[in-house]
Amino acid sequence: MIIPVEWTDEGVRMLDQRLLPNEETWLMLKTYNDVADGIRDMVIRGAPAIGVSCAYGIALGLKNFVGTNVDDLEEELDYVCEVLSKTRPTAINLFWAIDRMKRKFAELKDAGTSVTDIKAAMIDESKAIHEEDIESQRLIAQFGGELLEDGASVLTHCNAGALATGGVWGTALGVIRGAKDQGKKVSVIADETRPYLQGARLTAWELLKDDIPVTLITDNQSGHVMKKGRVNAVVVGSDRIAANGDVANKIGTYMVAVLAKQHGIPFYVAAPLSTVDMNCPTGDDIPIEERDIREVTHIMDIQLAPEGISVGNYAFDVTPNELVDAIITEKGVARKPYTESLRKMFEE
Amino acid sequence: MIIPVEWTDEGVRMLDQRLLPNEETWLMLKTYNDVADGIRDMVIRGAPAIGVSCAYGIALGLKNFVGTNVDDLEEELDYVCEVLSKTRPTAINLFWAIDRMKRKFAELKDAGTSVTDIKAAMIDESKAIHEEDIESQRLIAQFGGELLEDGASVLTHCNAGALATGGVWGTALGVIRGAKDQGKKVSVIADETRPYLQGARLTAWELLKDDIPVTLITDNQSGHVMKKGRVNAVVVGSDRIAANGDVANKIGTYMVAVLAKQHGIPFYVAAPLSTVDMNCPTGDDIPIEERDIREVTHIMDIQLAPEGISVGNYAFDVTPNELVDAIITEKGVARKPYTESLRKMFEE
Repeated sequence: MIIPVEWTDEGVRMLDQRLLPNEETWLMLKTYNDVADGIRDMVIRGAPAIGVSCAYGIALGLKNFVGTNVDDLEEELDYVCEVLSKTRPTAINLFWAIDRMKRKFAELKDAGTSVTDIKAAMIDESKAIHEEDIESQRLIAQFGGELLEDGASVLTHCNAGALATGGVWGTALGVIRGAKDQGKKVSVIADETRPYLQGARLTAWELLKDDIPVTLITDNQSGHVMKKGRVNAVVVGSDRIAANGDVANKIGTYMVAVLAKQHGIPFYVAAPLSTVDMNCPTGDDIPIEERDIREVTHIMDIQLAPEGISVGNYAFDVTPNELVDAIITEKGVARKPYTESLRKMFEE
Repeated sequence: MIIPVEWTDEGVRMLDQRLLPNEETWLMLKTYNDVADGIRDMVIRGAPAIGVSCAYGIALGLKNFVGTNVDDLEEELDYVCEVLSKTRPTAINLFWAIDRMKRKFAELKDAGTSVTDIKAAMIDESKAIHEEDIESQRLIAQFGGELLEDGASVLTHCNAGALATGGVWGTALGVIRGAKDQGKKVSVIADETRPYLQGARLTAWELLKDDIPVTLITDNQSGHVMKKGRVNAVVVGSDRIAANGDVANKIGTYMVAVLAKQHGIPFYVAAPLSTVDMNCPTGDDIPIEERDIREVTHIMDIQLAPEGISVGNYAFDVTPNELVDAIITEKGVARKPYTESLRKMFEE
């Protein structure tokens, strides 16, 4: 059972995913700045995992605050949230966690709670976010598992596994685990996912650990394996879903969706409702992070491309809703038109 | 001007493309076995370059033969060709060069030529193949250049440049150079082309050297840049074209062709007629090489994926003719239906 982040009395304990699959190293993050750095530098990644880590970072920031005045604590909260909000722009779960923690704080303050009690309650709230996250993945696994046939070969892109969430299930890989729990034999084709290689490093690692059959391919083999009839379904996670069902996810997801449509293969997105941004009308409104070009030009210290080359390194792309056959959430399976089906899930 | 392979009195001189872009090292190959190893180990790659190198390998094998009897020399020829034919299965130019060199030998033998004179004539034949290859690329550059608009941004996959041919122009990059020679401003988006990174290492290197603007992207960004309207045409090379116009080329080409169609972007293949296999009715008949999985799991000695993982490493895929808008050859631009247009080019 993989839980990549957890609260401890000493601080936030995080599996350093940058070193996988070669090293399993855990870091103990003792300040909110450490947590912000961990998110920015991709010690942890994946929208739900970023949400949980952010909540823990806020709780840690408040815990370490030395003042005794509630207004001062609130000022610190705003500052901590400001720092955390600047780590990764695309994953909406970051902002979702900040909102929820701020709402909780306001509630506690309004009720006249003491600084000490607020600190404790905020730690509890972050732990609750973590528990709810795991419970959401369990439900996604169950609903999504039902969409897969016995014997299905499922292509996935990037890592939307236990490592990308609060743990245990994962979103896209949760769907695989759910199908397995339902007694189905399923196997996975994992895109390596350049440049950061989350598929090769993380998805392959966690599926091998769970004894789920997995074959690794380069991103550019996905069309070929689909054409050869080796893919029965595609399941991916998401970093932000717009109100109309447009899906931002790891760069290359759009390409996989176009190929799936070309081959008549269902394309599913698995994500908790905390990934749905009802304030974002369409995918055009989702900010797309561009990352350091060294991720493309180098692997560790090995130079792959000539000095001075121009490089594009978009971290995400947007898959338009018409290419998405279903969005699997903890409240069930949303179908087109998503503007309606997603809204209903929030109203329930 | 890049000429990656050449005949010298000492042997076949070859630029070691495995070390680009970091080192520009030339190897002197003194036996046909060295040449076979060079092709197999990808010192040189690209269908036309493999054809030229193979011809030189045969000439070198005969030159080094110590016997004085023509029948013995013919036996050696068969043996040398057998060894060379087993280096790379997909590139038809290899077999094309073997056929042509064998035909020349038969002609010389039938004419009662001496062993010494046959050796010299076979060297001349291999040099002629090289010269004709360069002339073919020049014509492809001219015909293909006319298909590009001034200001075009062209996406290419793998390296179908001077490095992939006898030199100077290249096939797909020949089209770019042809357009430039015609006074057009063109820029290139180069897919890095995992796992061997021919785009990042070779295409980027040779375009930078020629001062042609180039932006490197990971393979999985191609859909995103097309969706953003940044690609006006796709031009790729080929390792073998079937009689019906199905195109085998570097893995990932099929994916790019599907995406080009989805976005209404013309998809062009540039290749000499020596790449067209009229004995291959469709792409289904083209053998697809599978290569060592270490190409995917490692970069140099750095392990990217967990130990024990299953890996797919297909080196090529087949793009069906309906996705190909034109095949640019040294005899002009072939259009659909290719069964007819390609046949006509051979009859001319």
